[in-house]
Amino acid sequence: MLNIAIIGAGRIGAVHAATVAAHPDARLVLVADPFADSAARVAALHGGRSTTDTAAVFAADDVDAVIIGSPTPTHVDHIVSAVRAGKAVLCEKPVDLSIKQVDECLAAIAGKEDTVMIGFNRRFDPTFAEVHARVRDGEIGTLEQLTIISRDPSAPPASYIADSGGIFRDMTIHDFDTAHFFLGDIVEVSAVGQHLDPAIEAAGDFDAAVVTLVAASGAVATIINSRHCASGYDQRLEAFGPRGVLEATNHMATSVRYSGTSQTSADGPYLDFFLQRYADAYRFELSHFIDSVTRGVAPSPSILDGRAALILADAATLSATTGERVAVAAGRERVTDIVR
Amino acid sequence: MLNIAIIGAGRIGAVHAATVAAHPDARLVLVADPFADSAARVAALHGGRSTTDTAAVFAADDVDAVIIGSPTPTHVDHIVSAVRAGKAVLCEKPVDLSIKQVDECLAAIAGKEDTVMIGFNRRFDPTFAEVHARVRDGEIGTLEQLTIISRDPSAPPASYIADSGGIFRDMTIHDFDTAHFFLGDIVEVSAVGQHLDPAIEAAGDFDAAVVTLVAASGAVATIINSRHCASGYDQRLEAFGPRGVLEATNHMATSVRYSGTSQTSADGPYLDFFLQRYADAYRFELSHFIDSVTRGVAPSPSILDGRAALILADAATLSATTGERVAVAAGRERVTDIVR
Amino acid sequence: MLNIAIIGAGRIGAVHAATVAAHPDARLVLVADPFADSAARVAALHGGRSTTDTAAVFAADDVDAVIIGSPTPTHVDHIVSAVRAGKAVLCEKPVDLSIKQVDECLAAIAGKEDTVMIGFNRRFDPTFAEVHARVRDGEIGTLEQLTIISRDPSAPPASYIADSGGIFRDMTIHDFDTAHFFLGDIVEVSAVGQHLDPAIEAAGDFDAAVVTLVAASGAVATIINSRHCASGYDQRLEAFGPRGVLEATNHMATSVRYSGTSQTSADGPYLDFFLQRYADAYRFELSHFIDSVTRGVAPSPSILDGRAALILADAATLSATTGERVAVAAGRERVTDIVR
Amino acid sequence: MLNIAIIGAGRIGAVHAATVAAHPDARLVLVADPFADSAARVAALHGGRSTTDTAAVFAADDVDAVIIGSPTPTHVDHIVSAVRAGKAVLCEKPVDLSIKQVDECLAAIAGKEDTVMIGFNRRFDPTFAEVHARVRDGEIGTLEQLTIISRDPSAPPASYIADSGGIFRDMTIHDFDTAHFFLGDIVEVSAVGQHLDPAIEAAGDFDAAVVTLVAASGAVATIINSRHCASGYDQRLEAFGPRGVLEATNHMATSVRYSGTSQTSADGPYLDFFLQRYADAYRFELSHFIDSVTRGVAPSPSILDGRAALILADAATLSATTGERVAVAAGRERVTDIVR
Repeated sequence: MLNIAIIGAGRIGAVHAATVAAHPDARLVLVADPFADSAARVAALHGGRSTTDTAAVFAADDVDAVIIGSPTPTHVDHIVSAVRAGKAVLCEKPVDLSIKQVDECLAAIAGKEDTVMIGFNRRFDPTFAEVHARVRDGEIGTLEQLTIISRDPSAPPASYIADSGGIFRDMTIHDFDTAHFFLGDIVEVSAVGQHLDPAIEAAGDFDAAVVTLVAASGAVATIINSRHCASGYDQRLEAFGPRGVLEATNHMATSVRYSGTSQTSADGPYLDFFLQRYADAYRFELSHFIDSVTRGVAPSPSILDGRAALILADAATLSATTGERVAVAAGRERVTDIVR
Repeated sequence: MLNIAIIGAGRIGAVHAATVAAHPDARLVLVADPFADSAARVAALHGGRSTTDTAAVFAADDVDAVIIGSPTPTHVDHIVSAVRAGKAVLCEKPVDLSIKQVDECLAAIAGKEDTVMIGFNRRFDPTFAEVHARVRDGEIGTLEQLTIISRDPSAPPASYIADSGGIFRDMTIHDFDTAHFFLGDIVEVSAVGQHLDPAIEAAGDFDAAVVTLVAASGAVATIINSRHCASGYDQRLEAFGPRGVLEATNHMATSVRYSGTSQTSADGPYLDFFLQRYADAYRFELSHFIDSVTRGVAPSPSILDGRAALILADAATLSATTGERVAVAAGRERVTDIVR
Repeated sequence: MLNIAIIGAGRIGAVHAATVAAHPDARLVLVADPFADSAARVAALHGGRSTTDTAAVFAADDVDAVIIGSPTPTHVDHIVSAVRAGKAVLCEKPVDLSIKQVDECLAAIAGKEDTVMIGFNRRFDPTFAEVHARVRDGEIGTLEQLTIISRDPSAPPASYIADSGGIFRDMTIHDFDTAHFFLGDIVEVSAVGQHLDPAIEAAGDFDAAVVTLVAASGAVATIINSRHCASGYDQRLEAFGPRGVLEATNHMATSVRYSGTSQTSADGPYLDFFLQRYADAYRFELSHFIDSVTRGVAPSPSILDGRAALILADAATLSATTGERVAVAAGRERVTDIVR
Repeated sequence: MLNIAIIGAGRIGAVHAATVAAHPDARLVLVADPFADSAARVAALHGGRSTTDTAAVFAADDVDAVIIGSPTPTHVDHIVSAVRAGKAVLCEKPVDLSIKQVDECLAAIAGKEDTVMIGFNRRFDPTFAEVHARVRDGEIGTLEQLTIISRDPSAPPASYIADSGGIFRDMTIHDFDTAHFFLGDIVEVSAVGQHLDPAIEAAGDFDAAVVTLVAASGAVATIINSRHCASGYDQRLEAFGPRGVLEATNHMATSVRYSGTSQTSADGPYLDFFLQRYADAYRFELSHFIDSVTRGVAPSPSILDGRAALILADAATLSATTGERVAVAAGRERVTDIVR
């Protein structure tokens, strides 16, 4: 039984709290949030004490592990404090919006990196995980082309956009991790950003993008993103190799199909958004975290994976704004750096 | 090169004429129809002479084979005349609406049955033929359950209904042949007819039906029919065995799929009707006929298969009107009889 | 918060216990089973006390409602005892294998029928429920033909078969309820049973069947069953009306599709069996039960619906063994009786 | 009735000959090929005279129009000769491998460009044409992202590769025309080429590629190519806009689906290659050509469209070899030029 504290009682913190509460091997012992009401509400629903003092989390003797779901700018501080206090960490993506901050974090926790896991939840989605496992097991031969289509149902408010770090660090970062997960080291990034909604352009961001990633292996990944999608949360992936193709197709609420005069075999709309689509993934992510902590082995994705995804996001941002391709190079372990 | 005459220059006759004209191994030499204009028009379009005198077909020295597409009541006379004149015959279904007439026909052509083929065109549809071949080759193990869904896009006019012999002899007869083709001897028939459209009920017919057929092998076939279908011409089949299922699904004009706010992955409507859906089947049917005549072997489906389908149609008509199941029994070769 | 006791700590009892434990508005207070270990184990996992004395359930002051998951022959006694003790009841299907017993049960609880719900869980499956709701709302026009395909992955042991009441009362009974749910009063039943596996025939049962049901409305339902299916638990339904078709298609564990040299767009196998396929349905079924009890309204499906399904199962059994169609007639409310 | 001559009696010439022969409004009158046997064989099969002297085509009084299916290096000469002789032209893609040659051709036929059509047959494929028409009619709103996946079943021999002009001018050129057809003027091209098969690399070419095209409208097209595909000829397209998505999915020989223990609803392999997949497209392309000539209007795609596709291919080649993005700019009408 792992005793877990959650920092951040917002939307994603509440998801983690519910997941912990429902997990047979975990217990929610503490919820910290500067908004006392939020912390108290989440604790009341899912168990444990609540506090507005984050330091209490690190000081608490009955806390084995910490899930960090607070705003991105606080991630690095909380990671360092938690690691120093001997707590295992599961931190939401991205680690930070600044690679410099991430590197300072890595320096601060040097030797303890293996106690930190980053919440790239899609790796734990049963559908994506099955494709990955079957590719890894050689079913389609050597992976040659990976196509990721990832579209949100609708754009977040402009206020969110302004602090998001941009589409590549905020939204595409999941797809960068997926590409990295499937292809290993990436050596080149080329990105095109689109301005479709003037409000988002005014907020200084793109609202659609196409990114091409070249892997050290010679494989190429294409990521196609949009901040809106009429059909719902569009989450697809296609892995192509010499012996075949494995696809992750979209999920619907039911398996009902309608046929009428103008169309046939019509499925329903896709699941609304990530909370619905990746509900199972949050559960399996937590199981992996608990299992890693319990067995004392390094969790995956690691904080180095979080760094690698950020490097790719930075490279894409640079490419989309300068119109040039950006070279990235293999660093220590699975980490890549921009090396123009 | 087989020289072919066509009797009947209506809708189905014109289809056969076009198919013959386009076939590399056949030549259309004569078109006969009591309506001189129709015969002349088809001949002008697809080649050959035209006549209003059917007897001219049987007398013509340059006619090797006859395709009979005239009204059902004339089929038996034309078959007998053609066979006596030494012509090979491809006759549209049904052979006749009366089993007595069919038996008289068989008596009249005794010893020459193998020169007559019946136009159950669906056996030659590449999709249905592939399912049949894969079932026969054992891919799903012993066939246990066969489900046939066959719905017309809309009902024919009441005038057609009145002379059609009823839904079972007119429409379901194709499905009876399919069931017989897949399952061999049938030993029991049970049918329910539905009265949905009062105009069709007034014409003395059902406009929808469900038929259950038990085969000597123990396999069961279910046929579900309707005279209308909003999505187009609904033609499906599902063969179930211990090792799997093989389905024939519907065909659409293109492979376009639409996804929007209320539905996703919607295909277009089904092909309109049999001329579109079974265009290839008419071609392959003709090839088989030409090949059989050329090689001097018995074509399939034979006139005995035509008789068997009519027996099943008679049994279904009896079952639907009396509310009782009807036993049929294996006769000579693949022929079955009602044996209440 | 509804306090619930569960009678029967076997497979289905354990499912209900887990569902109750996870439900925010219910609490598991007591588990009764003659096997003390089973009862204790379920209580330890999901909460509450355990007992080997069923009478303790009815006597307990802190029990508001009882879920009956014990063997079928005990259902009627437990229903009567629970109702007399003022407890609401959710009883697994079938109510009993004997219509006489069901009628005695109804007599014994006369005036209190509305406190008993029968566990036809498929009505609460989101996919089936969506089809039902859209049909009811007129999307396809008046329902004309309903096709239910329901196949188990593999047959239960012969010992189970022997006490099951036969395929129609044990397995098809779910489909009978579905047909009744969609079509209302049924007036005629015709069934064909198949003997595929000699071991099941030796146990006195069919292992596959096709049933045709005619509704008072003129609509026809077809049920196609098998005790085995290579692809998994095959659970489909197709509702056909003049304006279109609504289908419930199968569910898979993931949305992965594979394409290779011999096949393309291949989905994975169907979910294993009912516990996987209907996991959500058990949850929604419980919610409806809790809601009905809490609001003091009659739950649905009612014990009269349970009776109606059994009448149809009896009629199908009679039809399959005698080879005759069986008429059933509308009784009080939604109940039908065999009226040969 | 249009009298047509065909230059080139190889594979594609034979396809055009058969299409002309089967067309009700065209007649094949002459087949020219330096190989006398090839010319004679095609003429014998599909009608008309044969010659080894191409000049005879332009001199013939009974030739209204010329279809050019000879090797690419001969296209420009034949176009110029045919136009000067007053013949309408349907020329296979690409116009030439050199933009300089294309421009000289345009200069030579100045004022007569509207008598030349280029054989981008995919525009006439019913599936692609339907997607284009529905996008144009506003069904999905303004087109924002276009994804084209186009994979050949297997690579041509190295000898073919060597003279092909490279993957972008030989294979992708179809996709460039499709992108141009859907998106109009393209302003930026970025391409990544892959070396998967050493034999193709040795021949100086890529065997897979990913291309990103930015349109003047702000829309982005992605093209994903491979010279091999285990499932057959993979030809897909997805048009994304704010109101929905329209997809062109692959075509199979039949609509058979297989379900078994390890997979369900598996379709068959894709059609083999372009002759099978685009058989209808060649027919509709010819109809459009005949109709344009007969009515005296400009055909589409025009030779300027052919030039535009070649510019995009040149830009992609440059991008893939230099690793830089290439700007292209709107020229006269729909023509674009590289403007680095």
